[in-house]
Amino acid sequence: MIDPALFQENERTAPSSDERLFADVGALDCESGKRLESVTLAYETWGILNEDRNNAILICHALSGDSHAIGWWERLIGPGKPFDTDHYYVIGTNALGGCQGTTGPASISPDGKPYGSRFPMITVGDMVEVQARLLDILGIERLFCVAGGSMGGMQALEWTVRFPSRVRKAFVTASCARHSPMQIAINEVGRQAILRDPNYKGGDYYDGDAPAHGLSVARMIGHISFLSGEAFESKFSRRLQNKEKFSMDFGIEFEVESYLSYQGDKFTKRFDPNSLLHLTRAIDYYDWLNVEKAQSEFLFISFTSDWLYTPQQSRELYRMTSEAGKKATYQEIDLPYGHDAFLLDGEHQGDVLRNFLND
Amino acid sequence: MIDPALFQENERTAPSSDERLFADVGALDCESGKRLESVTLAYETWGILNEDRNNAILICHALSGDSHAIGWWERLIGPGKPFDTDHYYVIGTNALGGCQGTTGPASISPDGKPYGSRFPMITVGDMVEVQARLLDILGIERLFCVAGGSMGGMQALEWTVRFPSRVRKAFVTASCARHSPMQIAINEVGRQAILRDPNYKGGDYYDGDAPAHGLSVARMIGHISFLSGEAFESKFSRRLQNKEKFSMDFGIEFEVESYLSYQGDKFTKRFDPNSLLHLTRAIDYYDWLNVEKAQSEFLFISFTSDWLYTPQQSRELYRMTSEAGKKATYQEIDLPYGHDAFLLDGEHQGDVLRNFLND
Repeated sequence: MIDPALFQENERTAPSSDERLFADVGALDCESGKRLESVTLAYETWGILNEDRNNAILICHALSGDSHAIGWWERLIGPGKPFDTDHYYVIGTNALGGCQGTTGPASISPDGKPYGSRFPMITVGDMVEVQARLLDILGIERLFCVAGGSMGGMQALEWTVRFPSRVRKAFVTASCARHSPMQIAINEVGRQAILRDPNYKGGDYYDGDAPAHGLSVARMIGHISFLSGEAFESKFSRRLQNKEKFSMDFGIEFEVESYLSYQGDKFTKRFDPNSLLHLTRAIDYYDWLNVEKAQSEFLFISFTSDWLYTPQQSRELYRMTSEAGKKATYQEIDLPYGHDAFLLDGEHQGDVLRNFLND
Repeated sequence: MIDPALFQENERTAPSSDERLFADVGALDCESGKRLESVTLAYETWGILNEDRNNAILICHALSGDSHAIGWWERLIGPGKPFDTDHYYVIGTNALGGCQGTTGPASISPDGKPYGSRFPMITVGDMVEVQARLLDILGIERLFCVAGGSMGGMQALEWTVRFPSRVRKAFVTASCARHSPMQIAINEVGRQAILRDPNYKGGDYYDGDAPAHGLSVARMIGHISFLSGEAFESKFSRRLQNKEKFSMDFGIEFEVESYLSYQGDKFTKRFDPNSLLHLTRAIDYYDWLNVEKAQSEFLFISFTSDWLYTPQQSRELYRMTSEAGKKATYQEIDLPYGHDAFLLDGEHQGDVLRNFLND
């Protein structure tokens, strides 16, 4: 199943690729008991793997991210940035179940048709398993660091207990050990918006119109949860959208409505509704257990205004690791951006991260 | 337009009715410029109007409430309760634009068909205008108190500036002078869930299936905003719904999902999607201006864990009234229920309210 050509192509002789590569990582027996006969993992790399093969950093994306980590985490990844691509070999992958090149519900199954409703339920453990196989292909036994925010943070956490000897440091930002019922509720309403869209058709909609309205509404709900009240206030206040007075109809009146509509509809052009269902389910299921197995050093970061992945949840991660005798650092950063802060903040997060990596 | 029979029927000789009555309050020129040719207001009363006609209390309901205030505010209204029906004449009305007896989008228009898309956009001012006409019918010149939480609080605020001489006291709980962009965003996503439901048909769906899925999703979003994270945790934690382990599908796994589904679907049996559109729009538009006109005494209450109508917003109400030289009291109550607290708390809210009414 493993393509030796890929291995060659991606040996440390490869420069910053900045283009999407694909690894065939074989069949996967999912934790659900179902089997995927063939899994492809989309990934990108930046920097050069050193001779000791000990400078690799794996970046795990959040719900709607992709392998192009240097894009969505540009403030943390690049030459001279905390994840310094002049020093580290940085790998971004698209998560299993996603829709940006890695095998997911929209992928063509062995029978020549998209998986759709036949795509098995996946777990954060499954996501990490296929990432580990990519590292095998790339000849990386141990990561210098695994890193991620939000859903990406959960993958990083899972790495530390599923492959304890393969992770030296784990950077987990704006994430948690397990979703609270409120986080589950927010995800569930998004799922219901999709599942109840007539175009959903049980998940087998690929030969017709996608449940775009459902996905759009789900994304709008997401965007509400990503921002703090303060961020909403400073971005939009009660400003009207290109008008002096209300139109008095159900069209767009306020700027914030235009923002939601734009974000929701834009998302439908790049994301598969089935992927949203599967990925949100995987993170709702997730529960970080067996912390005592971890051999990593941890950095946890949270943001004061993040009401989705709360500081309390990051403090809990710090408590869990400290009580298990692991070396851990926790930093709460006071920024007003809400959950989005983990993507927007290079400065404060970057300083703490730099110290953590150089320590 | 005013039915004298109604006036007779509801003179202070009428005992606690506890049944829904209807007043024809005539044509209404709405603030939008559109006209409703005939408006009916559904209302209920409890207690007896005294000879001086100065013991009337008008209760204004929140988004999904109705005229049966003694039901949804049972902890505050009744014999011996703060709104003591042995002492006060308590009036509950269904808001204009609603669907519980008062003229709304589902009502039959003069041409014999439901208004549907032809129902005009209404405002909080319009709601208050028709309530004032009911008071005219009932022969009540001045209210002892107008009271409401959330959307009901906005109506109470509007009373104090639209009819300053007609309100002695105003009790405004878990409300605000104007919606923040985050509140607008939450309402807008609910509206989009309805507007994008194929059954919505521009609002003219009364001869077919209602956009029930859209309404259900909108209600689920609402229920998330009504609870605090702490309330979610204590009500549901991560408990599974009648199972020991995950089913690994998109059915109900967690108790919190069952709760949302139940609340969402139950709502579709009693509420009209068009009413949700109109009422949320009215409160998003609302902006409490001309505070200096008010002649009332104010009591503002907020709840620490209410992240939808925040304590900060109630403090702003207190600041506005105090700076305008009005007599005002503000009390923040520390309860974990979130926005729902204004409905659930009889004890703390009741004590403060009792003092305010007796003062």
